[in-house]
Amino acid sequence: MPPSVHERVRQRVAEVADLVTVALDELLPRVEGPESRLTEAMRYAALGPGKRLRPFFALEASRFFEVDERAVLRAACALECVHAYSLVHDDLPCMDDDDMRRGRPTLHRAYDEATAVLAGDALQTAAFDILLDPETHDDAEIRCELAARLSLSSGARGMAGGQMLDLMGVRDDLGGVARMQRLKTGALFSYAFEIPIIIARVGDPYRAALMNFAHDIGLAYQIVDDLLDAEGDEDLLGKAAQKDAAQGKTNFVTLLGVDAARHRVAHLADQARGHLDLFGAKAENLKASVDFVLKRRS
Amino acid sequence: MPPSVHERVRQRVAEVADLVTVALDELLPRVEGPESRLTEAMRYAALGPGKRLRPFFALEASRFFEVDERAVLRAACALECVHAYSLVHDDLPCMDDDDMRRGRPTLHRAYDEATAVLAGDALQTAAFDILLDPETHDDAEIRCELAARLSLSSGARGMAGGQMLDLMGVRDDLGGVARMQRLKTGALFSYAFEIPIIIARVGDPYRAALMNFAHDIGLAYQIVDDLLDAEGDEDLLGKAAQKDAAQGKTNFVTLLGVDAARHRVAHLADQARGHLDLFGAKAENLKASVDFVLKRRS
Repeated sequence: MPPSVHERVRQRVAEVADLVTVALDELLPRVEGPESRLTEAMRYAALGPGKRLRPFFALEASRFFEVDERAVLRAACALECVHAYSLVHDDLPCMDDDDMRRGRPTLHRAYDEATAVLAGDALQTAAFDILLDPETHDDAEIRCELAARLSLSSGARGMAGGQMLDLMGVRDDLGGVARMQRLKTGALFSYAFEIPIIIARVGDPYRAALMNFAHDIGLAYQIVDDLLDAEGDEDLLGKAAQKDAAQGKTNFVTLLGVDAARHRVAHLADQARGHLDLFGAKAENLKASVDFVLKRRS
Repeated sequence: MPPSVHERVRQRVAEVADLVTVALDELLPRVEGPESRLTEAMRYAALGPGKRLRPFFALEASRFFEVDERAVLRAACALECVHAYSLVHDDLPCMDDDDMRRGRPTLHRAYDEATAVLAGDALQTAAFDILLDPETHDDAEIRCELAARLSLSSGARGMAGGQMLDLMGVRDDLGGVARMQRLKTGALFSYAFEIPIIIARVGDPYRAALMNFAHDIGLAYQIVDDLLDAEGDEDLLGKAAQKDAAQGKTNFVTLLGVDAARHRVAHLADQARGHLDLFGAKAENLKASVDFVLKRRS
């Protein structure tokens, strides 16, 4: 009997996660020299367990086009460095003050706060090191565009701006929550799809289809995150749950209620799959990944 | 009577500082949108009073070659963003825990710690935004190289690595102190000279001469910093003094003593000027700036 679609996606996600971890291990600075405490901490944050969903999306979408998978993998590693740096800084006592992440002590718990700040800083830098290296692509225009888009997605008008909004609690209504989400997590989700778009120089309507897919899956992913926070099992999550309620923060679930939030996830999932129709059979795997990604328990 | 050499250099340094502040004001994200607290904090850190010495060096050295001064100025602004981000993060309570910087409250004092972490993060990102923008240079190879070298100078094998060494206190001897200095402050000093080197595609022996000058002036600058920390006037410095002694940290002055440290500064100054001889009369201003930079009182 052939493996179920769900099982096939699960295997591919695991395969990509391994690919990314092996590649990152190669790309990150070695643990050597008197400053090795820093590179060790960077590796703790970037090489630990992670679903590597963003790299999965980048690699799956790149299969729709003629692209060098090695370039996509390197860019996806850079994206993971930025994602890892953001988690390290978000976990700091002055931010979300989290002790556990993916079932392990957060970086400032395993090391100390100063090392966590520096390791996050240097992980951001490492992302640009990777993208700008001629090994990533021999066309400097493409290297520049990969780096410029990552920069835009992660700065004041992207991820960092979203974290600022999250800390400020400026989200009394769904519009405010959605804007916060679009910057804080949506921007990097979108970047995952921009990687093949930039490398394969993809134009509309394919470009727009992928960006719309990214938008819907990113939003649905965040609503699931809020559902897990409301209902989640801390052992499964590997981190604290019900944090938003405890901090009096609004999110999709506190504003919509559990049932309406679930309904919206289902609607976004359908809509996301619909955007991929124009890719035909090539998109079966990515379509199948939607339910896999949204039916996570952690 | 013509102005003295010292006065001429002072005027030029002030002129460059104004140029950089005006350009940065243009380049940094506007204070608008609900996340404006973040962009306001970034501007507090990057647009406040500062000597802008690194941009001064970049612009002075660029006068030796045929280069578009606008490109150099934009790259120098990116360098200042990285310098500003490093000061914001170094001042944090978990790092050097400083309340004052350049005569004003440090960013985490004027705002809060979370905003300071995020503003530092986003200033680093802004540096890459600026460099990678086609406005900086129409040749993508040059944009990539400017960004890649800044990345290398500021990451785990550069500035961030140096700050890690500083925090760890791994510097029992002059070699350890010198290595820490070379990474923590030397790397960005060198980058200032790499800007014209990259943009004008300068080769040896001119390239080597500028890199040697950067090395000597960077080292001398750090020794002066240690002298000011040991003897300095907090009102003039605009920040706390005698911090290294209070924290039991070794530095050039604690290891060499004040007299030998001063002697070393003078020796490095002579050596630095000597590297510029091959540029002839064009280098008079940069040579004259050595004493100006090293005879600072703050």
